[in-house]
Amino acid sequence: MPKTLTHYDSSGRIRMVDVSGKPPTPRRASASALVKMTPRTLRAVKRNPKGDPLEIARIAGISAAKRTAELIPLCHPLWLSHIDVQAAFNKHGVVISSVVSTTGPTGVEMEALTAVAVAALTVYDMCKAIDKGIEITDVRLLEKSGGKSGTYRAR
Amino acid sequence: MPKTLTHYDSSGRIRMVDVSGKPPTPRRASASALVKMTPRTLRAVKRNPKGDPLEIARIAGISAAKRTAELIPLCHPLWLSHIDVQAAFNKHGVVISSVVSTTGPTGVEMEALTAVAVAALTVYDMCKAIDKGIEITDVRLLEKSGGKSGTYRAR
Amino acid sequence: MPKTLTHYDSSGRIRMVDVSGKPPTPRRASASALVKMTPRTLRAVKRNPKGDPLEIARIAGISAAKRTAELIPLCHPLWLSHIDVQAAFNKHGVVISSVVSTTGPTGVEMEALTAVAVAALTVYDMCKAIDKGIEITDVRLLEKSGGKSGTYRAR
Amino acid sequence: MPKTLTHYDSSGRIRMVDVSGKPPTPRRASASALVKMTPRTLRAVKRNPKGDPLEIARIAGISAAKRTAELIPLCHPLWLSHIDVQAAFNKHGVVISSVVSTTGPTGVEMEALTAVAVAALTVYDMCKAIDKGIEITDVRLLEKSGGKSGTYRAR
Amino acid sequence: MPKTLTHYDSSGRIRMVDVSGKPPTPRRASASALVKMTPRTLRAVKRNPKGDPLEIARIAGISAAKRTAELIPLCHPLWLSHIDVQAAFNKHGVVISSVVSTTGPTGVEMEALTAVAVAALTVYDMCKAIDKGIEITDVRLLEKSGGKSGTYRAR
Amino acid sequence: MPKTLTHYDSSGRIRMVDVSGKPPTPRRASASALVKMTPRTLRAVKRNPKGDPLEIARIAGISAAKRTAELIPLCHPLWLSHIDVQAAFNKHGVVISSVVSTTGPTGVEMEALTAVAVAALTVYDMCKAIDKGIEITDVRLLEKSGGKSGTYRAR
Repeated sequence: MPKTLTHYDSSGRIRMVDVSGKPPTPRRASASALVKMTPRTLRAVKRNPKGDPLEIARIAGISAAKRTAELIPLCHPLWLSHIDVQAAFNKHGVVISSVVSTTGPTGVEMEALTAVAVAALTVYDMCKAIDKGIEITDVRLLEKSGGKSGTYRAR
Repeated sequence: MPKTLTHYDSSGRIRMVDVSGKPPTPRRASASALVKMTPRTLRAVKRNPKGDPLEIARIAGISAAKRTAELIPLCHPLWLSHIDVQAAFNKHGVVISSVVSTTGPTGVEMEALTAVAVAALTVYDMCKAIDKGIEITDVRLLEKSGGKSGTYRAR
Repeated sequence: MPKTLTHYDSSGRIRMVDVSGKPPTPRRASASALVKMTPRTLRAVKRNPKGDPLEIARIAGISAAKRTAELIPLCHPLWLSHIDVQAAFNKHGVVISSVVSTTGPTGVEMEALTAVAVAALTVYDMCKAIDKGIEITDVRLLEKSGGKSGTYRAR
Repeated sequence: MPKTLTHYDSSGRIRMVDVSGKPPTPRRASASALVKMTPRTLRAVKRNPKGDPLEIARIAGISAAKRTAELIPLCHPLWLSHIDVQAAFNKHGVVISSVVSTTGPTGVEMEALTAVAVAALTVYDMCKAIDKGIEITDVRLLEKSGGKSGTYRAR
Repeated sequence: MPKTLTHYDSSGRIRMVDVSGKPPTPRRASASALVKMTPRTLRAVKRNPKGDPLEIARIAGISAAKRTAELIPLCHPLWLSHIDVQAAFNKHGVVISSVVSTTGPTGVEMEALTAVAVAALTVYDMCKAIDKGIEITDVRLLEKSGGKSGTYRAR
Repeated sequence: MPKTLTHYDSSGRIRMVDVSGKPPTPRRASASALVKMTPRTLRAVKRNPKGDPLEIARIAGISAAKRTAELIPLCHPLWLSHIDVQAAFNKHGVVISSVVSTTGPTGVEMEALTAVAVAALTVYDMCKAIDKGIEITDVRLLEKSGGKSGTYRAR
């Protein structure tokens, strides 16, 4: 893994990484986030009678992954072959996870992270009338594979 | 503060909150996030010779706040009178904070939270070549004021 | 109701309507569309075991309404106070309807129509693996109120 | 042609189709729509002295095709090698048709349909001052070719 | 007129101007640009048999004005009451001009300039097969009115 | 180099160029622009104590290049392997330059030009409080390479 900040040139100026010479290869990344809430808030959120409150968060995460390059200034615009976002209750709140795949010259870590971050923000939006103290935490890369830097797995 | 999920109708279906009857009033919200990194990663990020690595994160956060309604499905499109995003090193990594203001019929909590989340993702993007284990944590609302539900302050 | 094409100037060139002098007033519009499918396709769509196949169409419609001014060249960018999209099975397929509200100097007919059109396209997308012959039909304005031209109701 | 809803997983949850393993192949889709108006409205629209009222609808349709993946939640972001949108008067109103091409791992049916739908909405927008009763109808796929499922032709 | 850079705070960091306290007032701005081409290129562009080559540039300019706040990082998102873009041949090439109006707490100079810049880029795009040496020049504010700083007129 | 307007069909109607048959090859384009200001304005802009006023213009230019196909109606949506935007003071004001690369079936001239145009607009936005008479000029293609039409170099 490189040990320098690739997003800066030798004079310290911000720059996009040039992937012009790199051949397209299959790449995958997964990420997760936790929307942390009190047991009382969690019970109120689950009590919603009929709908699935997490489905809209999943859709928002999938849509956001497609727009990563519009949000993160130095990300490359990519086409994506798959985006999956899951959302499930656990005892601390809502756990969000994502898997994003492409065949391209650069990885999809930012797409996976953007998906979980926006899905988590959407959960906050839908629950904020009950509790504004809900926190989004543990937004992190779980795994990435493909590309020259090989496979990364979070400890 | 309401104790029900305003984003669901009586049959449990997801819905946007109707703010048609509400008069425009001044509203403000602030939020924060932490991009947590190891001391070693933090030293490497700070060593960047000349540029200001946090300035691009601030810009990304400001730009993202303007697009909140595109990212969060049930958010109302609003005009915003001010967006400020700050980013600073502390001993745990990079602390991001935002303040967003509007005069409108609904609050700007989601705009403030979206700003810090995307600024934090941008910091991750710029540092991921050094350390993919960086985490985004403590994304939370610090304060909101204006509107019928009054002022909220995080403990 | 005016009997001339307001989107053309006196030389026949396309132009945006100037609403600079008009005071903001409450406005509302509703529209509907039908996603027409064969009885056999309709049965297959309904057989989906657990999820609600129409919920994603509703979300897509709400999101699209917010982006009407990006899609329709001569539409004014507006803020919207409410967007509701409903989707339900009837014997011909899926009926989509929308209601959009604003307080502004121009109406929201295009927002209401864009919402139902994109929701209907989303239903098509989710069912096209079963039947590519599904049609979107009867996309029309049901009602509009507010503004100088008053109330319109479809016969 | 598959006879199951590919956009749902085995538990009924909505999901994007994974096209990671599929090689890019040439694909093409065409669609059409009718903007139906009364003979009287049609005469008024045609009377526009100098401009070509259908040209802006064509541009709007081409632009919309490029943004399909932003509008339809489970569509893959793709690059497109060609988008053509035609608009012509017939005795019922304005007929819109589109052809979209790509070389990719998935089809462009939704791009072709989105193009005609948004072009039709644009025609409505430009004529609504004369007649709000105009309807968009017969939005349908005419043909698709390429990919594993082969060629489809509407009857 | 202020004689300091309002987009920087006292420590020199970039910031958005806070317009929270400012009442909405009518504002207007106009701008122009020249797409400069050789007489030979100009003749070839005019020879296009039937269509109006400048109409698409006008549409692109109008659409771009609506997206100014997405393109220019420190611009406020605004609603706009009118956007007009004109394009005409003169002996040097194509002259583009725009007028943009709003009722708001800040001006629309950037919207007027963005409109002419993108319209000019569109003219370049449509003529580049004939001559890649076409230049865009004289992009400037012609006039602005409204707001505390009053009226500006280019000399 | 073709000597006809490729963006028009034989009847003079505007059309997108069909690149379906063209193989992807490496392509590159560079462009430049000048933000022209009086010596007095230039001194005031440079006096900004701490920040780098040109860095935000660079970021805006990079972000805009990614959205070229949304702004220019007949541009193909492409993925980009590299975008670089530089901004530097000279004695006339601020010189902006860009280099954009892709591997694709069509060139990236418009992406390079859009990058410098939006970066220049951003400089204007940040300096307009001091001097509204600043002009953007000399927006032009410096060089393009790759593709059937070969290499172009501005004189």
